[in-house]
Amino acid sequence: MKITEPTLKIDYERLTGNINRMSNKARLSGVRFRPHFKTHQSVTTGEYFRDLGVREITVSSLNMAVYFADAGWNDITVAFPVNILETDKIKYLSEKIKINLLFESAETVDTVSRSISGKIGGYIKIDTGYGRTGIKSGNIKDIEKVVYEIKKSRRIQFKGFLVHSGHTYSAKSIEEIILIYEDTVSKLTELRNYFWSDDIELSIGDTPSCSVVNRFDGVDEIRPGNFVFYDYKMLTLGVCKESDIAVSVAVPVVSVHKERNNAVVYGGAVHLSKDSVICKGKNIYGMAVEFRNQGWGEIIPDNYVESLSQEHGILKLKNAFLETLKPGSLVSIVPVHSCLTVDLFGRKRV
Amino acid sequence: MKITEPTLKIDYERLTGNINRMSNKARLSGVRFRPHFKTHQSVTTGEYFRDLGVREITVSSLNMAVYFADAGWNDITVAFPVNILETDKIKYLSEKIKINLLFESAETVDTVSRSISGKIGGYIKIDTGYGRTGIKSGNIKDIEKVVYEIKKSRRIQFKGFLVHSGHTYSAKSIEEIILIYEDTVSKLTELRNYFWSDDIELSIGDTPSCSVVNRFDGVDEIRPGNFVFYDYKMLTLGVCKESDIAVSVAVPVVSVHKERNNAVVYGGAVHLSKDSVICKGKNIYGMAVEFRNQGWGEIIPDNYVESLSQEHGILKLKNAFLETLKPGSLVSIVPVHSCLTVDLFGRKRV
Repeated sequence: MKITEPTLKIDYERLTGNINRMSNKARLSGVRFRPHFKTHQSVTTGEYFRDLGVREITVSSLNMAVYFADAGWNDITVAFPVNILETDKIKYLSEKIKINLLFESAETVDTVSRSISGKIGGYIKIDTGYGRTGIKSGNIKDIEKVVYEIKKSRRIQFKGFLVHSGHTYSAKSIEEIILIYEDTVSKLTELRNYFWSDDIELSIGDTPSCSVVNRFDGVDEIRPGNFVFYDYKMLTLGVCKESDIAVSVAVPVVSVHKERNNAVVYGGAVHLSKDSVICKGKNIYGMAVEFRNQGWGEIIPDNYVESLSQEHGILKLKNAFLETLKPGSLVSIVPVHSCLTVDLFGRKRV
Repeated sequence: MKITEPTLKIDYERLTGNINRMSNKARLSGVRFRPHFKTHQSVTTGEYFRDLGVREITVSSLNMAVYFADAGWNDITVAFPVNILETDKIKYLSEKIKINLLFESAETVDTVSRSISGKIGGYIKIDTGYGRTGIKSGNIKDIEKVVYEIKKSRRIQFKGFLVHSGHTYSAKSIEEIILIYEDTVSKLTELRNYFWSDDIELSIGDTPSCSVVNRFDGVDEIRPGNFVFYDYKMLTLGVCKESDIAVSVAVPVVSVHKERNNAVVYGGAVHLSKDSVICKGKNIYGMAVEFRNQGWGEIIPDNYVESLSQEHGILKLKNAFLETLKPGSLVSIVPVHSCLTVDLFGRKRV
């Protein structure tokens, strides 16, 4: 296929390697591997997981759950506090597949329970330190209320506690990520012990933890998503190798300004997203690498996306790279945050 | 329509007011009004412009040009340095409608000229200080080369100089915006005088300038886009009134955390975009206001979007507002940057 406009390129060999590694580590640890499909959101990419034996998945919205359920996935956890305005979708899913939802309050348990006809699984979203959503792990009183309400329901089976320790994304070292993992597991275990039951599952999710720990001791399920592609952010965190990054965006060069050491590409915020990492005090919106028909070139420091407008990207480039470019050339961009970049391309990819 | 998931709401009365005001100011100034359609990207919203007499438009990609050309718009400027990998689209447009393209180098003029069969207009992209794209206004040598190449072509008619003074977006005051406008016009006029021709058109584009100057003296065309919706960024810049903002996103509340003064909504980076403004040292991703069936509530300081994940938004709210919310409530978000937010919703809107 001739590339003429911003185009998402996936390296399926790397992607398969990433899935295999994570899947093997889960199997060796004796935990369930329930990958998060929000990162790729594609039935086609989902088939790579299916080929490797994955049958249980995670998504982040009821719309995504319906999309994958309709494509034949029949065991799905929606790892997002349940939106009670969408009970029609919950009802549909409860009748069609095995679906697990996330609860944080007794009221939503009751509303959902009364509006469905099938059965569903219920997890309680716990916050062990990230502070985004969930009931704080120390807040036993509120957790008990939700557990009680779920156990009261004939429609909802209590499954366990689910956490996303997203604070690993801003960790300063691998050691810090491991400490966060251990802290998460210890808080969840304490909670399980309080409730005196071995039936309570513990489910964790973040890609940094899942990538760096050697064994998933103390939990029952992992739900990483980003690991399927990784990205520049994960590389800077040290949780993947450059050769694990399985996604880039090919963009056409429309202008070269040698005097400013930059090139302008057709590829902007609507293609890459405005997510950035800060390196040496500068916001970086992606790394610019050589375009190749198969794959893409290596990341070289100082070749990066300096700024983004709606459709424009401004690349700051070293002379050696800049001199190979002219209007009509292609450059590849290794994204900062693959989840948002891939989302922007919808289900179009090569 | 019952809102159950993140939904773009447009206030068409405000939108019509915004178009009317800008269109009238252009007419009274005797300049062409060629609004930028990248902000809304919708044939339906385009009809509001058509009803108010607009026939000439601007877009930021050849794909958008094809989309609007196929919907009956027949005088379009693509205000983006031409991408010579898309000559098939240029050929198509050159045969179907009046199309103007942007050039920055003699080579691209030559490539385009040789690949089309119809006629097109050609502008030269000039940089008067923003530093994103274009040939610097003082670089007469390079500008002459491109003018010469366009004039040599039998396919391309030289139209003039086009600029986007995007540095008005980071101005600190209205006075600074006006100074940038005056500087832009003065540099373009100098350029036109150098080329000894009154036929050369001067086209400017940014919403801040177009909103605050009283008359468009010294230019021939204005191409603002963002003004159709405005947004919180434009409000903080002082270039619009709150009652001019014509877009918001309605989002469902999924969780309320009174102890942290926050609410979690289904509405994240894939709905709002990660664009932010810095207020009192904090990144703000949108303002949270009361949801109403018609329109939305007023902006109150300290009720804002504190952080965004892929599908989650975390709202920091004052008690008075927080106490009105529970899971299943709706909140409206006034976006920081309407262009990116509206793009994320594709052509779906209410």
